[in-house]
Amino acid sequence: MEVIHSIADLRSRIREYRRKNDGSVGFVPTMGYLHEGHASLLRKARSQSGLVVLSIFVNPLQFGPGEDFERYPRNTERDLEVAEAAGADLVFMPSVSEMYPTPTRTTVAVSGLTSRLCGASRPGHFDGVATVVSKLFHIVQPDQAFFGLKDAQQVAVIQQMVQDLNLPVEIVPCPTLREQDGLAMSSRNVYLSDEERKQALVLSQALDKAKEFVLSRPNFNTAELESLVRKHIATAPLAVIDYAEVLAFPTLEPFENSTHTHSIILALAVKFGKTRLIDNVIIQLRK
Amino acid sequence: MEVIHSIADLRSRIREYRRKNDGSVGFVPTMGYLHEGHASLLRKARSQSGLVVLSIFVNPLQFGPGEDFERYPRNTERDLEVAEAAGADLVFMPSVSEMYPTPTRTTVAVSGLTSRLCGASRPGHFDGVATVVSKLFHIVQPDQAFFGLKDAQQVAVIQQMVQDLNLPVEIVPCPTLREQDGLAMSSRNVYLSDEERKQALVLSQALDKAKEFVLSRPNFNTAELESLVRKHIATAPLAVIDYAEVLAFPTLEPFENSTHTHSIILALAVKFGKTRLIDNVIIQLRK
Repeated sequence: MEVIHSIADLRSRIREYRRKNDGSVGFVPTMGYLHEGHASLLRKARSQSGLVVLSIFVNPLQFGPGEDFERYPRNTERDLEVAEAAGADLVFMPSVSEMYPTPTRTTVAVSGLTSRLCGASRPGHFDGVATVVSKLFHIVQPDQAFFGLKDAQQVAVIQQMVQDLNLPVEIVPCPTLREQDGLAMSSRNVYLSDEERKQALVLSQALDKAKEFVLSRPNFNTAELESLVRKHIATAPLAVIDYAEVLAFPTLEPFENSTHTHSIILALAVKFGKTRLIDNVIIQLRK
Repeated sequence: MEVIHSIADLRSRIREYRRKNDGSVGFVPTMGYLHEGHASLLRKARSQSGLVVLSIFVNPLQFGPGEDFERYPRNTERDLEVAEAAGADLVFMPSVSEMYPTPTRTTVAVSGLTSRLCGASRPGHFDGVATVVSKLFHIVQPDQAFFGLKDAQQVAVIQQMVQDLNLPVEIVPCPTLREQDGLAMSSRNVYLSDEERKQALVLSQALDKAKEFVLSRPNFNTAELESLVRKHIATAPLAVIDYAEVLAFPTLEPFENSTHTHSIILALAVKFGKTRLIDNVIIQLRK
């Protein structure tokens, strides 16, 4: 495994690989502080690709004012251990000035899909995501890129961008990994106090209840479903709901049970103190 | 020379070329109705590239309401003759539905550079240009792309986009070609009546005067220069000035003669009846 800091070096290493090999290039973009969820993306890439490229870059563009850019957790040493064990070949760790040598004037924006959920709570967030992911795609030029479905809206936004801009890359969405007790793995879990960590279980519990509710009631009512979820989350005194919404997936448009939507997402964002957790379940409807 | 209509076919032809050859891929994106200016871009590409790809696509996204998208001149038969004579290998002529199979939700926008000149007169125009050029770059994946400097602001916008988004392509700006009497070649010249065509010479004449003025007066005053240009254009009774501006190049920021700018652009947009012509001169200052 090789650690690379400059765009030019990364490009030349990938070019060299392509010249000598027929295998595909698989790419896992991350913000570091790697956990088992990231490792599962790398293992998936390893199983499908000849060359596995991991990027670690905490992208300032996707953090709003007052968000946790400065205190976002970082641990390079452990990240490199996780990356190596999971099969990464190249780890790209650019500085902010390598990625943004001059103030960027170009923005990639995806409309519609970004007006709800995290797009509504974090204005500009998905412009920052789409812009940096398109930069990374241009730098790495991967055949496949692997993204975790915990950030389901991010996956939907990136798939829309890839389709609209004809980016020559296949997006591979991968399942959310969870702790034994159900908490979705996230680099931000490290912020939680012991008590917050316990109470944070209401997220995955609420999603389980919601799934059971939907699958046992083909004519379920959206408002009723959202209310069930909100009530369960409210059993955690420290939980402050940012959103708890049912939408069609992957369009993220309002869901009416009468329409021909085949999949829905129930998406949650809940704050515990300063820490904002997200989780979701995507449910295929039997219609 | 091969004419290709589908993205998949074009990609497979280019992939095949790359597999068998070491030469580079040169790309000339156009809206068709090819003239000698386009031919000069193709010849330049021919001299530098192993495979020369021409695209002909009148992009609805870059036309505003009431602009000339519907009546933009088209002549496929002659275009193919010009393309073949100038050395194109592949001509990509997609339909609108091939390029935009679903309403596009993704926009590539370049700020700053697009607030003046044609960006001010044609809101949304450069978003349409940047978006379609990024799509075409993703489809063709050229090593070099060739653009005419008659659209100098377009060149500056695309260079900024390429730099900001790390697009793996080299932009090659090429000089404006002119008719014998000085009129800048443009597909839109065909709209001009005989009388308009005669009077349209004031554009290139004004640029010549401006260049002479600047080079003979190192401490020239911007307002004086703009006034000189406007006065000359006003000698054509049919001319209606949209803009006549002196800016730093390629930043397109306001130019103060005291600053350390090395190049300026004098850019013009002038209407004759319904036809809007643009022209410019880029002048290197001896500082």
